[in-house]
Amino acid sequence: MMDQVKVIEIQKSVLENNDQEAEKLRQKLRKEKTFLLNLMSSPGAGKTSCILRILEHLKAEMQIGVMEADIDSSVDAEKVAQSGVEAIQLHTGGMCHLDAAMTEQGIHQLDTERLDLVILENVGNLVCPAEFDTGASKNAMILSIPEGDDKPLKYPLMFSVVDLVLINKIDCLDYFEFDMQAVKERIHTLNPQAVILEVSARTGEGFDRVAEWFRKNVNQWRKES
Amino acid sequence: MMDQVKVIEIQKSVLENNDQEAEKLRQKLRKEKTFLLNLMSSPGAGKTSCILRILEHLKAEMQIGVMEADIDSSVDAEKVAQSGVEAIQLHTGGMCHLDAAMTEQGIHQLDTERLDLVILENVGNLVCPAEFDTGASKNAMILSIPEGDDKPLKYPLMFSVVDLVLINKIDCLDYFEFDMQAVKERIHTLNPQAVILEVSARTGEGFDRVAEWFRKNVNQWRKES
Repeated sequence: MMDQVKVIEIQKSVLENNDQEAEKLRQKLRKEKTFLLNLMSSPGAGKTSCILRILEHLKAEMQIGVMEADIDSSVDAEKVAQSGVEAIQLHTGGMCHLDAAMTEQGIHQLDTERLDLVILENVGNLVCPAEFDTGASKNAMILSIPEGDDKPLKYPLMFSVVDLVLINKIDCLDYFEFDMQAVKERIHTLNPQAVILEVSARTGEGFDRVAEWFRKNVNQWRKES
Repeated sequence: MMDQVKVIEIQKSVLENNDQEAEKLRQKLRKEKTFLLNLMSSPGAGKTSCILRILEHLKAEMQIGVMEADIDSSVDAEKVAQSGVEAIQLHTGGMCHLDAAMTEQGIHQLDTERLDLVILENVGNLVCPAEFDTGASKNAMILSIPEGDDKPLKYPLMFSVVDLVLINKIDCLDYFEFDMQAVKERIHTLNPQAVILEVSARTGEGFDRVAEWFRKNVNQWRKES
């Protein structure tokens, strides 16, 4: 059952007021005490690998669903389903981002009332997804070491709209020129509230603190419901 | 002079027929015997570093100009200008791609009649830039090793529209799980004509063959003019 991945062909949203639609979805999930995390990054920064690490830490203590957005493949949802967590694949049909109405189509397929946490893997793109509120409770992004420490200068909106930044692939820090202190200062200049955590999806390093962030935020969300 | 970087604030295109505008720009450049390469990739794949290596090989034998598109910084154009090649920075103001009319605004600022080659560094994004003809003579993209060998499966349009694929950061091949043969097969399945070259912008490996590709294509373009 769990390794059969449902694939949803997302319909392009015709709604003009995305913010209103996003707020509606957020209120529905609040009532259901379901925390939705919108996870964004460049292609290849490690979204799926990080999700798999998060699931390792949390799947025994909460009910989790994963929505994997991709233009045209199902490889990510299949990987998640193999870990024993319910996953659906959203096919965006060439779209470069998800908006609230598109996210809602995925949420509609998961029986979210029984879920504590839904992780949405957005399309791999540092530009467009930052412009659209998906209705998520919180937003996170991954910056990977090989991408370079100048990315906050080049994609400032993305770094401004997120609550959590995971700096991934720290196992290869010695191999690349990457100034960790400079990148943290650049992020905090744009977004003083952002929580920044260093991780390696390859080795698992740092995911105990990521799991802590999730526990705290999922609990907070429940209390506010 | 060369290290003063001109910054152009790009106006959003209002033209509906991008293909027509692109063809018009291509014809203008053909008449001028100026070859325009549109270079695309994910954020952090190494567009600017690869351009610097290409300039090392070619700047003594042809007249080159570089246009660096970025949402909101000038760091790339400044790096290019330091190498002694004319560079202008295009500020896209949040846009996720360049279209032909936007490219034309940059071309207008370069005195292209006296240039043999213009390299356009597109916005770092594997989705949207693939959908818009910029008017370039040829299209190229960079896939970097840390991004993973599954990218052609996930961003098929990008891999379908390019003439040249540079596989960059091969100096760290041993460090990442990356199946070079598999990725080449995936690219050629989508795009049998694509030329694929392995390079390292860090070490300079492979850029003699990239320079050969440019010489051949710039000459071909001149002959067809």
